Amino acid sequence: MEYPEALERLVGDLRRLPGIGRKSAERAAFSVLEMDEDDVRAFAEDLVEARTKIHHCSVCGNITESDVCAVCSDPRRDHSVVCVVKDVQDVLALEKTNEYHGTYHVLHGSISPMDGIGPDDLTIDQLLSRLDGSVKEVILATSTDVAGQATATYLQSVLRPKDVAVTRIAYGVPVGTSLQFADEVTLAKALEGRRDVE
Amino acid sequence: MEYPEALERLVGDLRRLPGIGRKSAERAAFSVLEMDEDDVRAFAEDLVEARTKIHHCSVCGNITESDVCAVCSDPRRDHSVVCVVKDVQDVLALEKTNEYHGTYHVLHGSISPMDGIGPDDLTIDQLLSRLDGSVKEVILATSTDVAGQATATYLQSVLRPKDVAVTRIAYGVPVGTSLQFADEVTLAKALEGRRDVE
Repeated sequence: MEYPEALERLVGDLRRLPGIGRKSAERAAFSVLEMDEDDVRAFAEDLVEARTKIHHCSVCGNITESDVCAVCSDPRRDHSVVCVVKDVQDVLALEKTNEYHGTYHVLHGSISPMDGIGPDDLTIDQLLSRLDGSVKEVILATSTDVAGQATATYLQSVLRPKDVAVTRIAYGVPVGTSLQFADEVTLAKALEGRRDVE
Repeated sequence: MEYPEALERLVGDLRRLPGIGRKSAERAAFSVLEMDEDDVRAFAEDLVEARTKIHHCSVCGNITESDVCAVCSDPRRDHSVVCVVKDVQDVLALEKTNEYHGTYHVLHGSISPMDGIGPDDLTIDQLLSRLDGSVKEVILATSTDVAGQATATYLQSVLRPKDVAVTRIAYGVPVGTSLQFADEVTLAKALEGRRDVE
């Protein structure tokens, strides 16, 4: 017995989501068959609505339902500081700290020649065009993998001629964990970045 | 910063799928934002279509887009044998073996007084009404957990007065694994069910 065609198509759609293999997609599809029809219709509408209503902020590349995102349009934020991140999830992670009150710039990727992603594929031009004198500091918060490091190095080189301070977020041992769980590179960075105790 | 409302709703929908927690739902929702709009619309249509087109076979309770499922309407299948299973996924698992050529009866659950599920909540009446003399054997293939065992015991008692052979699929050690990975109950059942070597 084959799956009914409509079910097979739904399994195929679900498999395209990240982290969902054949088995999980089948389980998810079967659960849809048992859901309230109204709930399934709402789910379908939410899919289309999210895809069509949400787009990138014209200033920083963050997600928004408006032209300019909630951070960029907030007058209480410090618009003289721009934190550069790889993607929108990084913005959300930093926002959850409630410790950062500047603005963001989302690159939508990392420089990775192996994957054919160069500086022109990221929103680096848009970042440079924001440096009209009002921005005093650019914080590099790209990821700590090889591609993220390469991106930070590239950004440093293009930002050097600009009249702006360039900083890098601190590397170190994560809080709330035992030293033995940190990898050697992180530990080495943590030692290198040691500070005086006040 | 909060998620845009449309994204938050989509995350909520995705979380209702089995095995998808908050983090996976967020990752999946972000991937939807990056998908082709046409693909998202197709996904949404597939959701509604699967839910509205697929229903339970009026004979056996398997899924189908017609009134009667592919197994029940296949004249090459042996309609004198009915294999009783908990749910539709069990049908698909048995079909994958290509070894079973009879028909099925899907109970859509197991008897579980703790969860308030009694015999009347399953399709047992429909099973009994299929025993019009044409069925020679009912194979009990309910799950091997407590609820599945309780269901099999109940079925045995209601099938006993009927003019039909009742069998139970074999318990034993799974094929292709080392004995040490089998639990004690399975091993005990495997010993109990031992057969002469031909």
